Amino acid sequence: MTERLSVAVVGAGYWGPNLARNFSASPDWDLAVICDLDIARAQQVADRVGGVAVSASLDEVLADPSIDAVAVATPARTHHPIVMAALRAGKHVTVEKPLADERGRGAEMVETARASGLVLMADHTYCYTPAVLKIRELIAAGELGEILFVDSVRINLGLIQPDVDVFWDLAPHDLSIIDFVLPHGLDAETVAAHGADPLHTGKACVGYLTMPLSGGAIAHIHVNWLSPTKIRQMVIGGTKRTLVWDDLNPQQRLSVYDRGVDLAEQSKTTTSDARAAHISYRLGDTWSPALPEKEALSSMTAEFASAIREKRQARTDGASGLRVLSILEAARGSLEAAGAPYPVHTTHRSDNS
Amino acid sequence: MTERLSVAVVGAGYWGPNLARNFSASPDWDLAVICDLDIARAQQVADRVGGVAVSASLDEVLADPSIDAVAVATPARTHHPIVMAALRAGKHVTVEKPLADERGRGAEMVETARASGLVLMADHTYCYTPAVLKIRELIAAGELGEILFVDSVRINLGLIQPDVDVFWDLAPHDLSIIDFVLPHGLDAETVAAHGADPLHTGKACVGYLTMPLSGGAIAHIHVNWLSPTKIRQMVIGGTKRTLVWDDLNPQQRLSVYDRGVDLAEQSKTTTSDARAAHISYRLGDTWSPALPEKEALSSMTAEFASAIREKRQARTDGASGLRVLSILEAARGSLEAAGAPYPVHTTHRSDNS
Amino acid sequence: MTERLSVAVVGAGYWGPNLARNFSASPDWDLAVICDLDIARAQQVADRVGGVAVSASLDEVLADPSIDAVAVATPARTHHPIVMAALRAGKHVTVEKPLADERGRGAEMVETARASGLVLMADHTYCYTPAVLKIRELIAAGELGEILFVDSVRINLGLIQPDVDVFWDLAPHDLSIIDFVLPHGLDAETVAAHGADPLHTGKACVGYLTMPLSGGAIAHIHVNWLSPTKIRQMVIGGTKRTLVWDDLNPQQRLSVYDRGVDLAEQSKTTTSDARAAHISYRLGDTWSPALPEKEALSSMTAEFASAIREKRQARTDGASGLRVLSILEAARGSLEAAGAPYPVHTTHRSDNS
Amino acid sequence: MTERLSVAVVGAGYWGPNLARNFSASPDWDLAVICDLDIARAQQVADRVGGVAVSASLDEVLADPSIDAVAVATPARTHHPIVMAALRAGKHVTVEKPLADERGRGAEMVETARASGLVLMADHTYCYTPAVLKIRELIAAGELGEILFVDSVRINLGLIQPDVDVFWDLAPHDLSIIDFVLPHGLDAETVAAHGADPLHTGKACVGYLTMPLSGGAIAHIHVNWLSPTKIRQMVIGGTKRTLVWDDLNPQQRLSVYDRGVDLAEQSKTTTSDARAAHISYRLGDTWSPALPEKEALSSMTAEFASAIREKRQARTDGASGLRVLSILEAARGSLEAAGAPYPVHTTHRSDNS
Repeated sequence: MTERLSVAVVGAGYWGPNLARNFSASPDWDLAVICDLDIARAQQVADRVGGVAVSASLDEVLADPSIDAVAVATPARTHHPIVMAALRAGKHVTVEKPLADERGRGAEMVETARASGLVLMADHTYCYTPAVLKIRELIAAGELGEILFVDSVRINLGLIQPDVDVFWDLAPHDLSIIDFVLPHGLDAETVAAHGADPLHTGKACVGYLTMPLSGGAIAHIHVNWLSPTKIRQMVIGGTKRTLVWDDLNPQQRLSVYDRGVDLAEQSKTTTSDARAAHISYRLGDTWSPALPEKEALSSMTAEFASAIREKRQARTDGASGLRVLSILEAARGSLEAAGAPYPVHTTHRSDNS
Repeated sequence: MTERLSVAVVGAGYWGPNLARNFSASPDWDLAVICDLDIARAQQVADRVGGVAVSASLDEVLADPSIDAVAVATPARTHHPIVMAALRAGKHVTVEKPLADERGRGAEMVETARASGLVLMADHTYCYTPAVLKIRELIAAGELGEILFVDSVRINLGLIQPDVDVFWDLAPHDLSIIDFVLPHGLDAETVAAHGADPLHTGKACVGYLTMPLSGGAIAHIHVNWLSPTKIRQMVIGGTKRTLVWDDLNPQQRLSVYDRGVDLAEQSKTTTSDARAAHISYRLGDTWSPALPEKEALSSMTAEFASAIREKRQARTDGASGLRVLSILEAARGSLEAAGAPYPVHTTHRSDNS
Repeated sequence: MTERLSVAVVGAGYWGPNLARNFSASPDWDLAVICDLDIARAQQVADRVGGVAVSASLDEVLADPSIDAVAVATPARTHHPIVMAALRAGKHVTVEKPLADERGRGAEMVETARASGLVLMADHTYCYTPAVLKIRELIAAGELGEILFVDSVRINLGLIQPDVDVFWDLAPHDLSIIDFVLPHGLDAETVAAHGADPLHTGKACVGYLTMPLSGGAIAHIHVNWLSPTKIRQMVIGGTKRTLVWDDLNPQQRLSVYDRGVDLAEQSKTTTSDARAAHISYRLGDTWSPALPEKEALSSMTAEFASAIREKRQARTDGASGLRVLSILEAARGSLEAAGAPYPVHTTHRSDNS
Repeated sequence: MTERLSVAVVGAGYWGPNLARNFSASPDWDLAVICDLDIARAQQVADRVGGVAVSASLDEVLADPSIDAVAVATPARTHHPIVMAALRAGKHVTVEKPLADERGRGAEMVETARASGLVLMADHTYCYTPAVLKIRELIAAGELGEILFVDSVRINLGLIQPDVDVFWDLAPHDLSIIDFVLPHGLDAETVAAHGADPLHTGKACVGYLTMPLSGGAIAHIHVNWLSPTKIRQMVIGGTKRTLVWDDLNPQQRLSVYDRGVDLAEQSKTTTSDARAAHISYRLGDTWSPALPEKEALSSMTAEFASAIREKRQARTDGASGLRVLSILEAARGSLEAAGAPYPVHTTHRSDNS
C-alpha cells in the first residue's frame, strides 16, 4: 500500500473541523496538526478527532519537513499570504473558496504553484458531491447534447455577512459547479450583475448574475439572503435532454428529462424564419439516476492525495478557483456600472483539468 | 336592477371563445355579436354559447348604435387599428395583452380614450384571479410591510412563437401582475434584459428582466420556453413578511411567511456598518389564506361593466397596459444593447387606478 | 371505413354530459338520443353537443331498432332494471360504476348479457386513463416482477352522500383499477373493512379495506371524506420494482423505483430464518414514463365499439364490475361484523378479459 | 442552582451514544458511566463524550450509591431483567421503546416502580420533538375540537429485523405519539392487525393497525419495510380543524387546516338522515406554526430530571409504555386470528400524566 501523506489543517473556525474529521478518517492521509491563532479552538477540534497536535504558529507548521500538504480554511482575505507562505515552504495546498479576495492575488498563487511543481487545489466541495460528479459524467458522455442554458437558484434566509455581499458569499458555489460540469468550463467573456440592498445594509442581499456562454448559451445565477423559503436548484438545458438538480429533495436529487425542442436536421443551414417552421416537441420519459451516499469532503481529500501522487492538477485546480474569482471580480465591476455587462479577465480551463 | 350593457367580441381565435362564454354568462352583459373575418370560426364560437349573431365586418359592428362596448382578442399588431376605430365609434373597449405592438400606438389609444371619456381596459386576466386579488389586498393592507424584492419565474416547454420572443409572449403576465399588486405599480426607470437564443431560432427563448424599483427594491422576471418543468412562482419580499405565490399548487397557492430579517429601529439613521450589527432574524408562522373559487374572466367582465357605469378607470386600465408596453419596449432596447440597462419611457400609475 | 354504431345516453345528471360529449366526438359512434325523465335536463345536454334528439321515455328509446347500444349513467339502484330492459331489447350496454346495488342483481345482468351474446361493459373510466393503461402494460410485461402489495389512498374533503357510505362512493375506483392492472385481477377471498362515522351521520365517512391477495400479497385501500388534503396515490410493490402513481402530480404521475429488497436465489427453498439472512437491498434508478394526453372516456367509447364489433368481452367487462361489487358486498358484511374478515363471493376473472 | 443528578447509560449500541451525548450536555445531569458487556464499545462511546468511566458489570453500576438513575438502551428482551434490577437497587429508570417484550413483564415493571416511589419513564423520544409537543399543545387547547380520526403512515425501505416484525419495529413510534397527544390517550379496546409477508421472510413486512377510539373516532397506522419512498405523515382530524404532520418536510412540518365538515347545532339530537341534511363545508385558511429547533433527547433528559425532582410521573411514564405494549400484544393476537379484532388489555392513562 502507498504511504500516507501528512497534512496540516490551518484554521479551526466553521470549516476546519470538517476538514480535520475527513483527513483524519482518510486512508490517504495522516492528520498531523491543527493550526489556529486561537489555540483553545484548535485544541477543541483536535480533541474531537482523537488527540492530534495543535499549534498557534503557522511558521512552525510550515517549517516541519514531515508535513506534505496544508489545507487552508481561514477568512478569504488571509488566503493569499498563507497559501504563498505554504507554497514557498514547498507544501501542496488546498484552499477554501474563494481562492483569494482579489483576482491578481489568486493569479500569483496559481503561477507560484505552477512554477514550483506543487498542487494548488480549490476546495470546491460541492463539486465532489455524488450529484455534481454524476452531472459532470452525464454531460461528458453527451447525454444532454450541447448545453443551451444553465439556471441556478440558491436562496434562503441567510446571515448577512459583515465583509462580503451575497454574490461573494453564495455565488462561488454555483460558479465552481458550472465550471466543473460544463465541457468548456466557465468561459463567459462578460458578466452582468444586478444587486439590491433594500434593507440598506451597505451590501447587496439579493443578486442576479448573467453570463453569455460560448455557442449562444446563457448561464444565470440567483442568490438571495432574504428568501423565507430555501431553494437550491440548478437546471441545465441541452439539445438532447434537460437536467434538473434539486439539492433539497433527497428522494430525487437529479431528474433527467427527455423533453425538449427539436430542430429538423436540414434546417440548420437555413434562415431563422425557416428554422422556426421546423421546430417540433419531444415529450419523453424522465429518469432519476441513483446516487451513492458518500461525503463530498471524503472524495475531495482522496482527489487531493491522488493529484499529489500522480503529479497532476487536481480536478478543481487553482485555475478553476481563479476562473471563479475572475467572474466575481467582473460582477463587482458590473455592479458598479449599474448592471452593464463587464468584461471577464479570462483564464481558460487548462487542458489537464 | 341595472340594465345590461351590450358587447361585441372581436376575434374568434384562442381567447375569443373564453370572452364569449364569460360575457354570455354575465348578469351585467348581453353578448350581441361575435365578429371575425373567418365567419365560420365566429359561427362555431356563437354556437357554443347558444346562438349569438355573427359578423365578418368590424365596420358593421361598430356602426351598430345598440352596442356599448367591444372586447378585442385579435393578434397584437391589429390592436391599434381596431381599438382606435372602436373608440372613434364611441365604444368602450377591453383589449387583450399586450395593449399594442408599440408604445407610441398604445399611448395614442390611451389618450384617445381619455379625450373621449371612454373606458379603455387592459384585459390583464391574471390580475382578476383570486390569488392576485388577494395579494393586492394583503400588500395594500400593509401585511408585507415595504416591498424589498419581487422575483417571478414563468417557465415551461413552450411553443416558439412565429412573431414574438419569449419576453413579449410571457413577461406581460408578470409585468401586469407586478403593476397591479405593488402600491406604486411598475415604477422602474430602467430595465436590463438578457436573452438567449441557443437554438438559433431567430428570437430569444430564454429571458431575464431586471428592474430596480423605487426605494432600493428590485424586480426580476425569468421567462423560458425551453424548460422541461413548469414553474409559475412569484416571491414578494417585504420588511414585515414575505409572500410566495405558487400558481401550480392548488392546495396552497399563497403562503405568507412571517420570517425575515429585522433591523433595529434606531439603526435607520446610522451608517451601514452599524446597521449590519443591528440585524436579527425572525422565524414565525406561515399562513396560507383560503381563496374563493372564481373564474378570473368573470371578475374581469364585472369590472369592465362597473367602470363603464361608474364612469371611472378600470382597475387594469389602458395606462397599466401602457406601463407594461413601456417595459417591454425598453427591454427590447436593452437586448439590442447586449443587456445594458435601458431607460423606460415612464407613465406613472394614475391616481384613480 | 366501418359503419358507425348508434348509442343512446340514459341519464343526464352528473356523468351523462361527459358520456354525451365523448360519444358525440367519437369516430365510432353516432349519438342518437339523450334520455332522461327530466326532459329539460336532457335538452340541456343535447344542446351542448349540437342538437341531438331527446326523450323522456326509456321504452321508446329501447324500442328503436336503429339504436345499437345504451350508455347508462343513472343512480346505482336503477342500474338493474334499466340494464335488464336494455339487454332484453337486444342492446349492448355500458354502465356506470357500481354495476348494481347488490351482487345478486349484478350477477343476473352478467348472465343475461352472456346468454344473449351482448356486450355488457362496466364503465370503469379510470382504467382508460393513460396512467392506468401504462401500469397494466408494465405489470403485464413483468417490469415489477411478482406483486407484493398494493396500497391505495383516495382521500379528500368530500360530499357526504345521501344514500351510500364512503366505501361505495370511492372504493369502486380503487377496486376496479386493482382488478384491471393485476395479472390475476381482484382475487381476494376475504375482505376486512373498518369504518368510522365520528360525525354521527349514519354512515362511514372514513374507511379502510384490507384484502389478502394470492401468493401472500396484500391490497389495502384508504378512503376518506374528512381529509382536508387531497391525495390520490397508489403504490404497487413488486419483487423487481415498485411503482408509485400520484394522480395529482401531472408533472410526474408515474414513478418506477428500481429499489427494493432482494432475496438470494438459493434461499427460496430454505426456512424463513435462513431466508432473512439472505436479504439484501437494491437502490437503483427511478424512471418516470411519459404518458400520452388522452381523455379516458374517449378510450372507453372506442373500446366499447371494438368489443361490439369483434364480438368479445370489453376490457372492463360485466364480470369485472361484478368482482368489484362482490368486494363491496363482502366489505359491508365485514363492517357489520366489526371488522372481522368476511368471505368474498368469488367470481374469477374470465379468460378473455 | 439545583444539584445535578447522576446517570448511568446501559447499552452502547445504536441508541446509547445519543443518550450519552445528551446526558453529557445536559445542565441537569452528570453522566457517570457507560455500561456494556462489550467494554470496547462502551469505551468508544465514552471517548466521544470526553472520557467518562466505563463498566462491563451492571451489578457494579447498580451497587454504586452515587448513581441516581439509569438509562436503558439494550435489546427489548433484556429490558425486564435490567429495569427490575435497577428499580430494586433504588434507581430511577428511563427505558427505550418498547417497554418490554411482553405486556405482563411491562406491568410488573410499572407496579414495582410505583410501589418503590421511583420514576419509570418510557423513552418515547418522538414525543419530545418540537412538532409533537406542539401537536399535544394544540389539541389540549381545543384547537382541533373533538378528535374524529388519526391516520399515520410510516413507510420506507427498511432493514428486515431478525427478531421483530414491522409492527414491533415501527408502530411503537406511532402508538406512543397517539397516546401522548390525544386527551384520552390510546384508549382503544380492540385492535385489528393485518400483515403481509410476501417475501416469505417469516414475519410481516407490511402492516396495518386499526383501532376504534372512544366517541366513534378511529386510529389507523400503516407501517411498511418494502416501500421505495419514505413517508412519515400523521393526519389528525377534528371537528374544528385538521392537522397534518409531515415529518420529512422541514420547511412546513405542521399544517393546521381550517377546513372540514360542519354539522348544524340543532341537528345533534335528530336522526341520521336529518343530520346529513344539515352538513355544510368550511374552506378556511391553513396555518403552519413555527417550531423551535431543539433536539428531542435534550427535552427528554430534562423531563426525566424534573419528574425525579418533583416526585411525579414523567410525561411519558411507564404506564404509557405499557399502553403501547398492550396494543402491540393485542395486534399479535389479531394477526394470529387472521385480522379479527382482538381485545386490548386496557390500562387507562393515569390522571397525572
